[in-house]
Amino acid sequence: MSRFWSATVRALQPYVPGEQPKLPNLVKLNTNENPYGPSPRALEAMRGEIGDSLRLYPDPESTRLREAIAALHGDIAPAQVFVGNGSDEVLAHAFLALLKHEQPILFPDITYSFYPVYCKLYGIDFRAVPLDDSFALRVADYAQPNGGIIFPNPNAPTGRALPLADIEALLKANPDSVVVVDEAYIDFGGESAVALVNHHPNLLVVHTFSKSRSLAGLRVGFAVGHVDLIDALNRVKNSFNSYPLDRLAIAGATAAIEDREWFERTRQAVIRTRGTLTRDLESLGFEVLPSAANFVFARHPRHDAAQTAQALRQRGIIVRHFKLPRIEQFLRITVGTDEQCALLASALREIVGA
Amino acid sequence: MSRFWSATVRALQPYVPGEQPKLPNLVKLNTNENPYGPSPRALEAMRGEIGDSLRLYPDPESTRLREAIAALHGDIAPAQVFVGNGSDEVLAHAFLALLKHEQPILFPDITYSFYPVYCKLYGIDFRAVPLDDSFALRVADYAQPNGGIIFPNPNAPTGRALPLADIEALLKANPDSVVVVDEAYIDFGGESAVALVNHHPNLLVVHTFSKSRSLAGLRVGFAVGHVDLIDALNRVKNSFNSYPLDRLAIAGATAAIEDREWFERTRQAVIRTRGTLTRDLESLGFEVLPSAANFVFARHPRHDAAQTAQALRQRGIIVRHFKLPRIEQFLRITVGTDEQCALLASALREIVGA
Repeated sequence: MSRFWSATVRALQPYVPGEQPKLPNLVKLNTNENPYGPSPRALEAMRGEIGDSLRLYPDPESTRLREAIAALHGDIAPAQVFVGNGSDEVLAHAFLALLKHEQPILFPDITYSFYPVYCKLYGIDFRAVPLDDSFALRVADYAQPNGGIIFPNPNAPTGRALPLADIEALLKANPDSVVVVDEAYIDFGGESAVALVNHHPNLLVVHTFSKSRSLAGLRVGFAVGHVDLIDALNRVKNSFNSYPLDRLAIAGATAAIEDREWFERTRQAVIRTRGTLTRDLESLGFEVLPSAANFVFARHPRHDAAQTAQALRQRGIIVRHFKLPRIEQFLRITVGTDEQCALLASALREIVGA
Repeated sequence: MSRFWSATVRALQPYVPGEQPKLPNLVKLNTNENPYGPSPRALEAMRGEIGDSLRLYPDPESTRLREAIAALHGDIAPAQVFVGNGSDEVLAHAFLALLKHEQPILFPDITYSFYPVYCKLYGIDFRAVPLDDSFALRVADYAQPNGGIIFPNPNAPTGRALPLADIEALLKANPDSVVVVDEAYIDFGGESAVALVNHHPNLLVVHTFSKSRSLAGLRVGFAVGHVDLIDALNRVKNSFNSYPLDRLAIAGATAAIEDREWFERTRQAVIRTRGTLTRDLESLGFEVLPSAANFVFARHPRHDAAQTAQALRQRGIIVRHFKLPRIEQFLRITVGTDEQCALLASALREIVGA
């Protein structure tokens, strides 16, 4: 701590991202990256952008990309799309622009651990609403005064999805609050709330290119909502950094959106492997929560999660363990390739001795 | 304005970046981009990074890049370097982390127009300190209670540089405030305050890759200072977005730093052309402020600046005009190639009729 630090920076409790180990040859199942590479068309588009034009600023509005995202969703206009440097930046702007009000905001007690960090950053009060005993979100629990609501769907790190009808009920019960649905993992099995955007001016849906588009290394995320909500995000963005997306990110993300065939093929492969992985884990005695994401959340009734994670690491396999109340006996395991998941299953067979 | 907006977002007065026209064949001298392309080694490094590894998150610490920047400066450690998504993001974090205190911060009345925007964003009071009649910054004017000091050196949009001895005097006179020196344009003729960093724990120096490294399209900036100041920036960054730099930006910026020969050659070319451009403008009757940047700031005693800018635009040449007190009769003209500057001079010859 230094006397030069502001009161804000003194009070922060920064987020700790999943480990990005620099060792090669690890089976890396800890940060929910896609096991398949990005769209070849996206790679080609980025190659085409590398040249003298990088001396020029990018389009501050990322118009091409917003148009491609709008076209993907059909009844969405480009003015209803906001893009940012990863969905983390989009979420940060949403907290400041749309979730900072008099009342505390609400989010699940078990959820993306960046949410309370944003609250600290911007001085936003929050109330953590417990998930039920099966780690499901109960819409009725959100019927209380609030300055906004945010949750991932599917939830992280549980992988459980909330049906669209529940989200619609939540929106109707909270017409004066912004409801942010963080759909980082939606393409692996959930029903997207983008379908509700034109009927609910209080709904903001946030997506990322890091998971189903396999571009975690490129840093692109977006939000879809009523133009009034998007305008608020733009006002914050234009008070923070006019050009959050570089020329390569705009080109690559646009092409990734346009390559629907690659997207469909790779996400179906992940969904298939998730099924196999779930069955393998269950056959080893694990309880596996129903997952609509590209990871599973599993616990073993007789084996400590932290010790299991450590034993996996000794075998060159990294998964994520959260030392947090209610979930400290769970492991979050990214769905890798079939081969990676088979390696994991065989290592676990040794460890849990099934 | 919408009922869903936070009080913060209602009060914002967003920055308006220089125009990024989508028309081809313009002589674009309005946003201080480098007329020469990026280092060929940087382009090659980015090409090498395009592939399946983009599915993985980047290094959240951008270690390679910070090491390259530290090595460039000699007596600076990587832990003294912070990198971000353009120097605008670095500056934003510096405002929140290091310039938000009880007292108002100080910056020149004529300066980078993003500074008051950051103040609005984070609720920071400021006092604008007038430059003298020749648009020079007088260090003595900053001898007043303050919560921090920030200014560009060379200043924007004037182009005037402050000698290192003056910056040292400012640091000594304000040992309890953070002094941020925004050196976006330093490589075109100023003396960098990085040389003072190890002697002044209250000094933060901010650089960009957008100007002298010709990578405006890639979005990379950095700050150098005492580890305590860098820690504060990291705390904000890790409460906002863990991965502000994508894999391509890390690779390209690292190679750009390492290619010292290209850097030296292109910056010398800009400096040479600035001399010719200044003489041409003076021969047309313009008053040109002494510039240490990659732009000149010039006014004509008998021709209205806004009209001249408009007349240039009709000839396909864009320069920047600020409709602001004290400088509304100036044009800010980026130093382009020799050919672009000759086109500008000949257009101005027609317009001002010299």
